[in-house]
Amino acid sequence: MSSQKSENSVLIVGSIAFDSVQTPSGVVERALGGAAVYSSVAASFFSPVRIVGVVGEDFPKEHLDFLASRGIDTSGVQVAPGKTFHWKGSYEGDMNSAQTLATELNVFQDFKPSLPELYRSSEFVFLANIDPVLQLDVLDQVTGPKLVACDTMNFWISTKKDALLEVLKRVDIVFINDAEVRQLTGIVNVTKAASTIHELGPKYVIVKKGEHGAVTYCHDSSCFAAASYPLPEVVDPTGAGDSFAGGFMGYMAKSGELSEANIRKAVIYGSALASYNVQDFSLNRFKRLTIREIDGRYEEFKRIMFFESMA
Amino acid sequence: MSSQKSENSVLIVGSIAFDSVQTPSGVVERALGGAAVYSSVAASFFSPVRIVGVVGEDFPKEHLDFLASRGIDTSGVQVAPGKTFHWKGSYEGDMNSAQTLATELNVFQDFKPSLPELYRSSEFVFLANIDPVLQLDVLDQVTGPKLVACDTMNFWISTKKDALLEVLKRVDIVFINDAEVRQLTGIVNVTKAASTIHELGPKYVIVKKGEHGAVTYCHDSSCFAAASYPLPEVVDPTGAGDSFAGGFMGYMAKSGELSEANIRKAVIYGSALASYNVQDFSLNRFKRLTIREIDGRYEEFKRIMFFESMA
Repeated sequence: MSSQKSENSVLIVGSIAFDSVQTPSGVVERALGGAAVYSSVAASFFSPVRIVGVVGEDFPKEHLDFLASRGIDTSGVQVAPGKTFHWKGSYEGDMNSAQTLATELNVFQDFKPSLPELYRSSEFVFLANIDPVLQLDVLDQVTGPKLVACDTMNFWISTKKDALLEVLKRVDIVFINDAEVRQLTGIVNVTKAASTIHELGPKYVIVKKGEHGAVTYCHDSSCFAAASYPLPEVVDPTGAGDSFAGGFMGYMAKSGELSEANIRKAVIYGSALASYNVQDFSLNRFKRLTIREIDGRYEEFKRIMFFESMA
Repeated sequence: MSSQKSENSVLIVGSIAFDSVQTPSGVVERALGGAAVYSSVAASFFSPVRIVGVVGEDFPKEHLDFLASRGIDTSGVQVAPGKTFHWKGSYEGDMNSAQTLATELNVFQDFKPSLPELYRSSEFVFLANIDPVLQLDVLDQVTGPKLVACDTMNFWISTKKDALLEVLKRVDIVFINDAEVRQLTGIVNVTKAASTIHELGPKYVIVKKGEHGAVTYCHDSSCFAAASYPLPEVVDPTGAGDSFAGGFMGYMAKSGELSEANIRKAVIYGSALASYNVQDFSLNRFKRLTIREIDGRYEEFKRIMFFESMA
């Protein structure tokens, strides 16, 4: 018998989707997508992943096989009668925000997450962007998580604010974009608003700013501003935020330690994953991505953000 | 006779103005402002400055005395019959851009820069935001500059593009915001657009992004992404870009060396100056700012941007 510590798994709940996306670079129809898929695949470069979600009977076995091939446990994926969630959107100009053309919830409408027994002891939990009521359902089923992070979106801030505030009380980290920060707090200045969000629960507020990078506000008032990787072409921004959060959580689970030093490194690994993801449609870039490439981009981030050594 | 090398001066040409500004924090009427003023005062924390510009007979002697008290040579400031240039603007919401309410050019309308003999040998030249025809006039009067940088704005890109392209051929560095980058090149992706601007002349394209920091694109394809300082309150963003460029140029003149390492440090010093400037109206924060405070913020930038030492 080996006394070796088993690797930390990341539990991820969120949407599994077909995405139909139009960008200046082209079009894809009913491609693999969804917040849980992007974040799980990103996390899988660092740690084993357990995914929770729902698909319809139309979901191709090859997609589940792909997730399994990445070390993602798919026993928490329910197959429900009906069709898989379908999102249709387009990006124009600077591509900093999507225009949603259609949202067909389908099987997602009646989704009730139910965690396999094995999943319940997961120590690293990422609640990707779904109804905060479902995020709470998942939190009620895990036994003693070491690190819980959540994402959200403008729609839940408008329609399910009470449930979202309950989620925020129970997470260590929230991933949120700057428009959502303002919507949630009513405060225009993001730095000031972050303090207000700390008071709601999360120790770390990680503000995603797309091409402008990400700023991590810690409850002790320290702050880490990360660049985004300067890409001369963005093919499809879909899933960038999910890839960022997934890469972050995967690295945190791998490192196992919740220090601020590790959180900073995890932000950069998340940024590296996001930067690769947007270089192709759907999960296509991740399908041919190597850990060597990820480490290479991490090193590039050091050069991009360096101006003088710490004393 | 001393053999000590005299300090490098920065020559700065641009507007000297009265600014009437309204922000969520308050209002000022006919306060000291203008691109040349903000950038000269910022630069003066590091190096002697020579300012070139024009004021009307209504310009108070106390403002010129203030500039002189900062080590700024004002012998290149012409006093013309008439009134000083007056800009009136307001900022709302995230304050990332001003709404111009009035622009009274006044004496600026017939301004023709004429450099005092002493100014002509200046090695560090900053062409702040004015008509590119005037920027060329100044360049024609300097004898052998070591480093030339320019700023510009959307209005000149629309109305004086040929003259602006001539300026770009003759500068080492251009300060420009992301909207202007897109306007100048017709390219949406800023990273890609920066390469196009390198081909127009400048070795360094420094893209100013306000609260999102600044990205410096070098012609050798290296890149430096600097954060902006996370302020919980911005009182008045007027002059932030000018303070940034002025702080940058002042530091470059002080260091004397045009290495990329110095350029990166200069960007951070510029960011520090800009962050102080926006904490009060007009030049008020600069009037009580110390070099110790600037160095303190520079050190804070190291902590804000650090995630792992270079190998």
